[in-house]
Amino acid sequence: MAQPRTVAELAEFLGGVVQGDGAVLISGLAALENAGPESLTFLANPKYASKVAETSAGAVLMAPGGDRYGRTTIEVSNPYLGFAKLLTLFYTSPHEPAGVLPGAIVSDTAVIGTGVSIYPGACVGRNAVIGDRTVVYSGAVIYDNVTIGEDCTVHANAVIRERCRLGNRCIIQPGAVIGSDGFGYAPDGSGYYPIPQIGIVVLEDDVEIGANSCVDRAAIEVTRIRRGTKIDNLVQIAHNCQIGEDCMIVSQVGISGSTKIGNHVTLAGQVGIAGHITIGDNVLVGGQSGVTGSLPANAAYSGSPTIPHREWLKYSMVLPRLPELKKTVSTLEKRIAELEKSNLICQEK
Amino acid sequence: MAQPRTVAELAEFLGGVVQGDGAVLISGLAALENAGPESLTFLANPKYASKVAETSAGAVLMAPGGDRYGRTTIEVSNPYLGFAKLLTLFYTSPHEPAGVLPGAIVSDTAVIGTGVSIYPGACVGRNAVIGDRTVVYSGAVIYDNVTIGEDCTVHANAVIRERCRLGNRCIIQPGAVIGSDGFGYAPDGSGYYPIPQIGIVVLEDDVEIGANSCVDRAAIEVTRIRRGTKIDNLVQIAHNCQIGEDCMIVSQVGISGSTKIGNHVTLAGQVGIAGHITIGDNVLVGGQSGVTGSLPANAAYSGSPTIPHREWLKYSMVLPRLPELKKTVSTLEKRIAELEKSNLICQEK
Amino acid sequence: MAQPRTVAELAEFLGGVVQGDGAVLISGLAALENAGPESLTFLANPKYASKVAETSAGAVLMAPGGDRYGRTTIEVSNPYLGFAKLLTLFYTSPHEPAGVLPGAIVSDTAVIGTGVSIYPGACVGRNAVIGDRTVVYSGAVIYDNVTIGEDCTVHANAVIRERCRLGNRCIIQPGAVIGSDGFGYAPDGSGYYPIPQIGIVVLEDDVEIGANSCVDRAAIEVTRIRRGTKIDNLVQIAHNCQIGEDCMIVSQVGISGSTKIGNHVTLAGQVGIAGHITIGDNVLVGGQSGVTGSLPANAAYSGSPTIPHREWLKYSMVLPRLPELKKTVSTLEKRIAELEKSNLICQEK
Repeated sequence: MAQPRTVAELAEFLGGVVQGDGAVLISGLAALENAGPESLTFLANPKYASKVAETSAGAVLMAPGGDRYGRTTIEVSNPYLGFAKLLTLFYTSPHEPAGVLPGAIVSDTAVIGTGVSIYPGACVGRNAVIGDRTVVYSGAVIYDNVTIGEDCTVHANAVIRERCRLGNRCIIQPGAVIGSDGFGYAPDGSGYYPIPQIGIVVLEDDVEIGANSCVDRAAIEVTRIRRGTKIDNLVQIAHNCQIGEDCMIVSQVGISGSTKIGNHVTLAGQVGIAGHITIGDNVLVGGQSGVTGSLPANAAYSGSPTIPHREWLKYSMVLPRLPELKKTVSTLEKRIAELEKSNLICQEK
Repeated sequence: MAQPRTVAELAEFLGGVVQGDGAVLISGLAALENAGPESLTFLANPKYASKVAETSAGAVLMAPGGDRYGRTTIEVSNPYLGFAKLLTLFYTSPHEPAGVLPGAIVSDTAVIGTGVSIYPGACVGRNAVIGDRTVVYSGAVIYDNVTIGEDCTVHANAVIRERCRLGNRCIIQPGAVIGSDGFGYAPDGSGYYPIPQIGIVVLEDDVEIGANSCVDRAAIEVTRIRRGTKIDNLVQIAHNCQIGEDCMIVSQVGISGSTKIGNHVTLAGQVGIAGHITIGDNVLVGGQSGVTGSLPANAAYSGSPTIPHREWLKYSMVLPRLPELKKTVSTLEKRIAELEKSNLICQEK
Repeated sequence: MAQPRTVAELAEFLGGVVQGDGAVLISGLAALENAGPESLTFLANPKYASKVAETSAGAVLMAPGGDRYGRTTIEVSNPYLGFAKLLTLFYTSPHEPAGVLPGAIVSDTAVIGTGVSIYPGACVGRNAVIGDRTVVYSGAVIYDNVTIGEDCTVHANAVIRERCRLGNRCIIQPGAVIGSDGFGYAPDGSGYYPIPQIGIVVLEDDVEIGANSCVDRAAIEVTRIRRGTKIDNLVQIAHNCQIGEDCMIVSQVGISGSTKIGNHVTLAGQVGIAGHITIGDNVLVGGQSGVTGSLPANAAYSGSPTIPHREWLKYSMVLPRLPELKKTVSTLEKRIAELEKSNLICQEK
């Protein structure tokens, strides 16, 4: 916990504007409902605007122009981002370098940067390179010839297999696996001949991989995840995929082999994506959707198989009324038969 | 394997009633089909009642009033529970305390209870607390300031991150991750600013977490799983979730951030649940369902998006006949046009 | 990287036929688009036949009878399999036995074969058996009484729990868990009584298990995966399942307890399968499908719940037009009412 600061100091730190009493002392952060007089809170979603009236917070971070309900506020254009920055300010401190600790198993051919921390029980293979200030926690296993950049964090029991390469500031959550063999077999008439997976995985700068997620190495070339992309827990990225920059891939998504994902793509939870297809930039795919073909850029899709999100919304609302619709059609069928019969009589008259 | 016991002894142990020969010696347990004359079996599902006639088992555990087909039986109100208790009696024995074994890496500021077992290759961080009789297997990593209660089992390569807290009698299967960082980012106009995840995870007493499942730490406060809840393999629980007591969460379920689940809720396999919603007590959600909004208590739901289970059953039966329905409607359309035409003629007559 | 070889030598190795210049020197392999004059490439999918005209590859592996576009080719009946074999020839070499390395924790009652490699940080329990030439990477944990066959690979941080048995040539990717407790609880009126899972897992010869996949031990007997079956990443196999020979189970599939899968079955990504059912030989289940009942052999199925794949294709194409269909029916309803009215008038005339 850091030392208390005045609302005015925090406003200056964020480049925001104080409304009310800039001298109020803030010692921590909390949600609207739980914040006390020494806490700062934030309003990002207009839906909760009226809660500002009720909060006990010492100050509220909010967008300019909202109703302050008489509270002391700091106005910033992006209160959610501001709150995130204050969380960093109040609650985090840079990892103190611990060096290579006793019990860490580091090959003497590994190249270890300065300011690193390698914890007991971590294993670093031959010719592996660990960049400056990178932290490798207990039980993480770095195979031979891996290269990890600067300021990375590799959490406990994560595995980086041979020859894979990580950029700077990557974060690998516990149990994630980078560079497992791609799922490639050639049917040989009776069973399956395993195709050697001789490629690698490259994670560019600022990529984050969630707990127990898996990124398979390419068959021949490179499975690549570009700068800034964030991947949640239990996600599967198959061999030869190319994932763009600044994507958000939510938990339990699975992407099949050789698929290309553009930049700024968001895949919601449990989405499944077929192999050998292309997803355009800025695409948004709704939760549990199944993508069986390429998707043009700048649009939202849902369903399994996916269609434009709006159309999916419409049909999924009608879906539960399907049995009723079927009944209506049966009734209509009878009424028409009746009409046809009497029409015949009518015509015969 | 324990020593043989008579049917009468087993009946007494379970508080059940012997029908037939209480002196029969039982040396083990088996399924109806495989049980031999020295084995006891059980009948829980009335569907299999006729198999009692065919089994070679020495005795059958069953509910009172069923047809014994001349077998020796022990009648108990809950034969499945009785069988589980006999499995425990015959086949399990308390873990023999092994102490802190050579090769275990335990911080000298950790507080270790009596009767514990910490296996070679396990890591226990600074100020961590390990309760009495708790077992930590090889490769498990307990970060700094973690508290684990009494009689817990932490299996190989499981990870408990900093400051998380486990109650008593918790079981963590291999590879499970407790306290990974929540998936929280603030868009900053170009990419994503990572929101520090400074909260923790609390698992209350008797919680079990399956192999390679993940429970993310809260952004600020607590991700909580209440007493008695059982979680299967490869499940994702996102940050700030509150899971109630005695829930059953089956494999590959994913629950998004800040969602509240009531008590005695059952989520079948591969269910996905949106964030910031509330699931009432005793709710049952069918396999692969997608829950996009809050669900009232005491009911069963299915589908993606979910609707009451019965309605889902109805429409999913009609679904395959949709192409046929469409054809019928086209035919009706033509017949109506025909009728309208002749009606016009008829009127003109 | 191996030494260069002539096209004629490679043709002989594969039992194929050279068309063109057998003296061309090949030093590596690459995809059609990326291959240079010293590389051999392959054409397996007829869809890409025209790319043979454009490739810069020194030689092309293809099926007999295709248009060579003047290239040097090796004709083999199965070019994909041939390419896989050449990848093995050019890029892989047998793992050099390293022995039990310092930092590996191996019980003195374990039985270790010849030519094995056990890396630092790996743990092998009491009475475990490790077959000849098997490789156990860092952080892998082999519990007591496990038996592993010959020529297996157990990657980093994989876990094999007590008494489980692996055949020969099995590959366990990083983080996979074999033998975790099945998810079995008996409701006791208030909460859940854990049913001891005293069975084991048997993986037969040539079985491969993907990264972070889980195979639960049987409640009483054996969870079995038969010879040659390949399982991708993040797959869940529940207790007492019986999986046949030469199956392909793609990423994130979940199979519930006691289900039997035949031989040569393919389950695409994210498929969910209910418990206590039977899937016939040679069945193919489409991605994200939900199998709720047994499926007859030799057919393809899709949907949730599954129906024959062709029927699913039809209805899933109609699905998005459901709102339109509903509108049509409403219009027809009005037109019929109109007709009925005028029919009444007509009859009264």
